[in-house]
Amino acid sequence: MRSPVVKSCCVLFLILFLSRHYSVSATKKILNPKKPCKRFILYYHDILFDGNDVANATSAATANATKLGNTDFGKLVVFDDPMTKDQHLLSHPVARAQGFYFYDMKTTYNAWFAYTLVFNSSDYKGTLNIMGADMMREKARDLSIVGGTGDFFMTRGIVTFQTDTQEGTKYFRLKMDIKLYECY
Amino acid sequence: MRSPVVKSCCVLFLILFLSRHYSVSATKKILNPKKPCKRFILYYHDILFDGNDVANATSAATANATKLGNTDFGKLVVFDDPMTKDQHLLSHPVARAQGFYFYDMKTTYNAWFAYTLVFNSSDYKGTLNIMGADMMREKARDLSIVGGTGDFFMTRGIVTFQTDTQEGTKYFRLKMDIKLYECY
Amino acid sequence: MRSPVVKSCCVLFLILFLSRHYSVSATKKILNPKKPCKRFILYYHDILFDGNDVANATSAATANATKLGNTDFGKLVVFDDPMTKDQHLLSHPVARAQGFYFYDMKTTYNAWFAYTLVFNSSDYKGTLNIMGADMMREKARDLSIVGGTGDFFMTRGIVTFQTDTQEGTKYFRLKMDIKLYECY
Repeated sequence: MRSPVVKSCCVLFLILFLSRHYSVSATKKILNPKKPCKRFILYYHDILFDGNDVANATSAATANATKLGNTDFGKLVVFDDPMTKDQHLLSHPVARAQGFYFYDMKTTYNAWFAYTLVFNSSDYKGTLNIMGADMMREKARDLSIVGGTGDFFMTRGIVTFQTDTQEGTKYFRLKMDIKLYECY
Repeated sequence: MRSPVVKSCCVLFLILFLSRHYSVSATKKILNPKKPCKRFILYYHDILFDGNDVANATSAATANATKLGNTDFGKLVVFDDPMTKDQHLLSHPVARAQGFYFYDMKTTYNAWFAYTLVFNSSDYKGTLNIMGADMMREKARDLSIVGGTGDFFMTRGIVTFQTDTQEGTKYFRLKMDIKLYECY
Repeated sequence: MRSPVVKSCCVLFLILFLSRHYSVSATKKILNPKKPCKRFILYYHDILFDGNDVANATSAATANATKLGNTDFGKLVVFDDPMTKDQHLLSHPVARAQGFYFYDMKTTYNAWFAYTLVFNSSDYKGTLNIMGADMMREKARDLSIVGGTGDFFMTRGIVTFQTDTQEGTKYFRLKMDIKLYECY
């Protein structure tokens, strides 16, 4: 009698052992690009200060473009921009985007961003910290969410930028697809 | 006889299986905001260069405020500031804070920071890299520790800022409550 | 007969239990500084714009040095620099480094970097986001890789800088030893 019991034990152990290893790799697989633990889309509105429109402007160039090429290389813009759930500039902002971007290619427009999304609503309180390259020629480009606070305590993730509209040098709107992969 | 043995086996497997799953979710719970794996409080001292005091100054504005409002929007300050264990500016610094901040609201003072805490003492050798919004109107505000090196290899966490004192535009001191949640 | 079966069961459980705990702590130990999950070395080439060499320059100062000391305190440089597998400036770049650095000490040259490595080759597509202090006096210094996208989805790690050559204020080359410790 012992033999079959031991056998069944062994089989069970084997199953358990394999399932344990499977579950460890499954823990890894939680970080599946297609399966964020939280996701939402917001629109970023940037109205660049032209020297007069203090009331409307949400950003200003604090360092001018250098003479390295003709695509604003080195132009550094600080912003405090509204984030809305839809594409309308005048919709109620659900967050502020505070940070900076600059242009960094001499042959084409290309930018680099570092900023914080500041949430202070009934939905969320807290921040998301983001940095990365905004390769403007590409339809979609990914930046890193490198940390979070408050309701987003210790989170990490990816933001996908898409240019939604561009009106000369005065206004542009980015669609930001915010995907969190580490949630606590 | 086989039956009770197999039963007890099954019960044990069940316990083991549940405990395994419990332990996986417990791993998640290590990231409890109230239970950092390491915590210490340091004070940050910033003495802004006024054009003359090279000996004392620890920071300097490299880009001036724009005309978007009257609260220094766009003013960009680079710093190499001492970090002390108590509030005294002249205490032995246990680290340097190297990085920058800028002001980014047109209606009130509000800042954004990115910097590195550089430790080179008998206590710690290594760095902590930090970024986030400093919403100066709020009593306490959280920024992200996004990485570390040396004794802080691969760490992540939160720094809570509190303004400890502010003397005009010349000197300010921040209390930085450093909480690490991922320690290796 | 039951007794020896149960005993062997218990022993097996004990082994399994211990091995499980061992494997959990091993998961922690994956983050061993000497055992990155991916590692490669690239060279960073920076040719600072002098006002004339638009064709060759890869970076430009967008904010000038302040008068706090004589070591370029506050000088802010935006770059779009080639990354090569060997030390030759003219080798085919396998990535671009896009971001900025500034000098931040009044007694010696010392820098701070934040940038993105942009890969777009048959080897890799994606980005690595990096920030940290570049303590130029030290032979080797570590910065944090705080996130990644594409083939480097959600990665974290360390980059070790070593100055490979320095030709006045015009050209310098850094060896960047890129070590990833979280791979997905």
